[in-house]
Amino acid sequence: MEKQRYAVVGAGALGGLYGGLLARAGFEVHFLLNRDYDHVVANGLRVDTRLGDFHLQDVHAHASVETMPPCDVTIVGLKTTKNGLLKDLLPSPTREGGVVLVLQNGLHSEADTAAVVGPERVLGGCCFLCSNKVGPGHIKHVDQGRVVFGEYGDHAIDVTPRVQRIADEMVSAGIDAHATGNLPMTRWKKLMWNIPFNGLSVALNASTKEIVDDPDALELAETIVREVHAAAAACGVNVAEKAIAATIDVTKEMVPYDSSMRLDFLAKRPMEVEAILGNPIRAAKAVGFTMPHVETLYRELKFLDRRSR
Amino acid sequence: MEKQRYAVVGAGALGGLYGGLLARAGFEVHFLLNRDYDHVVANGLRVDTRLGDFHLQDVHAHASVETMPPCDVTIVGLKTTKNGLLKDLLPSPTREGGVVLVLQNGLHSEADTAAVVGPERVLGGCCFLCSNKVGPGHIKHVDQGRVVFGEYGDHAIDVTPRVQRIADEMVSAGIDAHATGNLPMTRWKKLMWNIPFNGLSVALNASTKEIVDDPDALELAETIVREVHAAAAACGVNVAEKAIAATIDVTKEMVPYDSSMRLDFLAKRPMEVEAILGNPIRAAKAVGFTMPHVETLYRELKFLDRRSR
Repeated sequence: MEKQRYAVVGAGALGGLYGGLLARAGFEVHFLLNRDYDHVVANGLRVDTRLGDFHLQDVHAHASVETMPPCDVTIVGLKTTKNGLLKDLLPSPTREGGVVLVLQNGLHSEADTAAVVGPERVLGGCCFLCSNKVGPGHIKHVDQGRVVFGEYGDHAIDVTPRVQRIADEMVSAGIDAHATGNLPMTRWKKLMWNIPFNGLSVALNASTKEIVDDPDALELAETIVREVHAAAAACGVNVAEKAIAATIDVTKEMVPYDSSMRLDFLAKRPMEVEAILGNPIRAAKAVGFTMPHVETLYRELKFLDRRSR
Repeated sequence: MEKQRYAVVGAGALGGLYGGLLARAGFEVHFLLNRDYDHVVANGLRVDTRLGDFHLQDVHAHASVETMPPCDVTIVGLKTTKNGLLKDLLPSPTREGGVVLVLQNGLHSEADTAAVVGPERVLGGCCFLCSNKVGPGHIKHVDQGRVVFGEYGDHAIDVTPRVQRIADEMVSAGIDAHATGNLPMTRWKKLMWNIPFNGLSVALNASTKEIVDDPDALELAETIVREVHAAAAACGVNVAEKAIAATIDVTKEMVPYDSSMRLDFLAKRPMEVEAILGNPIRAAKAVGFTMPHVETLYRELKFLDRRSR
């Protein structure tokens, strides 16, 4: 089967890593770049990863979507805070019939993409990934790396051939990629980590290690994990009970890590407060379930986000 | 009636102000001082207040309780985080039969004093006061000033002659003092302010004005005021519904103010997290009522308190 052609919109910590791995494996990958464009054209893309550091000198780099060819798969790695740009970015690289794979944080983050290209062309997924952009065209993949994606919808949808094909191609490129027949489950499981650890890392100005090493911060993190687990159940997504302890355990074993939200906060960039906390709160509220611990964190983060800019 | 003799243990923002006003009015007031002793002996006590700035050159200053005479009323203005000192400080200045007036923040803050002198000799009260110690022997009273006190107990107790007498003496000294027959009500009403505004001022590193000026911080503060109001009701203390809006309104009209907890935090002193948040949470939990918003704040503050020292 012929290799699909990929576009990466938002070539940061996530798009740079996965797009880079696909390009290294011989896939044609077109990167839409913003501030890093000149640097990448001159110096290529550098990826430090436990999978084996690599450097791609010749990259299909684009400063504008207008130069991008139609692609089979467009990977959206933008922050959700930039979703207002999608209406101008997505139509060009995504060929007629091509799909858009939204690998953004949060819940219902696919909705903005679906509004542009139509929900039937949207896949969604979560990255369980510690990766940062440490300089222009320079990605540092610190830990983890799994990506799980599937058809977009608010209920389980069996893995389709197009989802399986992308997963197979990613696996062939060395990516720990998995197709899922239950995207809502995947998203809520990730929220069980993202809400407490992104949120508290900003509210407490602390790394994941500082949080799990402190008895009170750990107790609060566990309480929030439980609350998100219960909210998922209220929304009809029954994550296994053992995922609660596993979420904490994986964080204890993780290298000390600054969450993406904390990095955004420290850099005075907009934080993904609505995608990661606001949307789950509203989804739960719509079915009559309240999340008071998460709401407290949400309001604090909204305040901090507003003040930091 | 002869004027009573007063002792002030903890002559800071609160003890310095009220003790200073009593001394200015001709009461014999003995101040127990710690680091400020030498300064006050040399320079006296300076109080800047909207009630009229004053300076007391000759102050009954003591570096140790051993030089303090037996007093009729001992005012405890120490931070609750120093209550471990009370067993050594209280017996000396409080004459046999004299009372101890605990003007500390929080709930059940009188318990440590009661353990030393016996509950029958304990009065408790709350100060609705914006006052700071701005230098050695120098108090700056910024806003408000009301003090409300009564017999110590977990239920309403009619105003006794000894409570009324102290209130009358304070009023004669220009203090906005009020006797109450319902100390638990007074304490919970103060907690409706202290929990949100002390707590959020540290968690958000913000003044009261920044909190009430931000829509999300204000929403969170209001939610917490409601939660404390409901916890009080669960504990049998029915604060009027209108106190919820009044608590927010008074803060909107207040001059921008750094709460005592924020000042402690910024100075890396221990914060009164247990007295102001921990004790109310536990009192509510004992009657089956949970305070999830306050608990979130409590855990955050415990973390911040531990890390700051």
